[in-house]
Amino acid sequence: MTVLAKIKFLQQPTSPAWVEQAIANLDTILLDHSHCERKAAGVALNLMFRYPSNSKLVRMLTAIAQEELEHFELVNQWLERRGIALGPLAAPPYGVGLNAQIRKQEPERLLDTLLVCGLIEARSHERLGLLAQHCPEPELAQFYGGLMASEARHYGIYWILATTYFPEEQVKQRLPKLAIVESKLLETLHPEPRIHS
Amino acid sequence: MTVLAKIKFLQQPTSPAWVEQAIANLDTILLDHSHCERKAAGVALNLMFRYPSNSKLVRMLTAIAQEELEHFELVNQWLERRGIALGPLAAPPYGVGLNAQIRKQEPERLLDTLLVCGLIEARSHERLGLLAQHCPEPELAQFYGGLMASEARHYGIYWILATTYFPEEQVKQRLPKLAIVESKLLETLHPEPRIHS
Repeated sequence: MTVLAKIKFLQQPTSPAWVEQAIANLDTILLDHSHCERKAAGVALNLMFRYPSNSKLVRMLTAIAQEELEHFELVNQWLERRGIALGPLAAPPYGVGLNAQIRKQEPERLLDTLLVCGLIEARSHERLGLLAQHCPEPELAQFYGGLMASEARHYGIYWILATTYFPEEQVKQRLPKLAIVESKLLETLHPEPRIHS
Repeated sequence: MTVLAKIKFLQQPTSPAWVEQAIANLDTILLDHSHCERKAAGVALNLMFRYPSNSKLVRMLTAIAQEELEHFELVNQWLERRGIALGPLAAPPYGVGLNAQIRKQEPERLLDTLLVCGLIEARSHERLGLLAQHCPEPELAQFYGGLMASEARHYGIYWILATTYFPEEQVKQRLPKLAIVESKLLETLHPEPRIHS
């Protein structure tokens, strides 16, 4: 299955309302993006902690964590350039909503975690693509375009890991169920502008 | 204060017994080293999560986390080359003992955390240096020698951060107290070979 074919697992495309909200709040979106990259590195690291014997997982997630930290640094350079102070930002309900779908027992917990991570990367890929397309500042738009490709690779990696540790049939049955929830969580635009509002 | 001057804050040097134990158990030491690098990256990331507004801390710890992940990957390549499977390993009492010294209230919690991290890096620097010196396998000895310099830089960074957020006088008063505990924790050789046994 190609990377492109997997994007279609996003059940619903992002609404024009999100694009409008994001473009009107580029500074907040950048700050939230910084948090997203740091959190993504943290999630990869936590998975490596939890499954220290799964060497393929450890090696692939090391690469993801490294890349997320590079992006975190790049986004922070943008924040500095725009005079936006680093600081906390309340998370939208998206992450909590997705985590609630992860079953608590192994091995289902691992499968669900990998697929949820993959869906978040897929959505980030789609949304950074929309920012690249609609951002009125050419340099920033180009920056988003550059990051898009990595997000695509990342959800490709989560897919590979899921099908490494679980039969492809089981992965294919579970992914659409989680993808439906993922789209539902974004159906109503969160009032505060976020990458996943 | 130079980096070298700060090494002297280790109150006691590592005993010859540790060197002997480590050299006799190089495979276990490598596996533990892999865990140490991953944990160090995790600690840096957790600090970034906890103090998201301290931009100097965030920027400097991003660099540390990236470097620890690079080393993690390098150590894992050594494990693979030697046919040692990745897997869990019981931690020695060192980390728990040091964490118990961290005061729970801010701002003391931040100061103690930075100094404990610095002390761990200082001890790692000393011990990787001993491995570089005594390891009977030239290529592995060279590898340890190469990592030593980073550990020195890392505790330099933790020192800089401590003196960024706290008066130098306060840092200089607290560090020796923590350093005494650190040396005490290593006074009795832990029966299982570890980087910090």
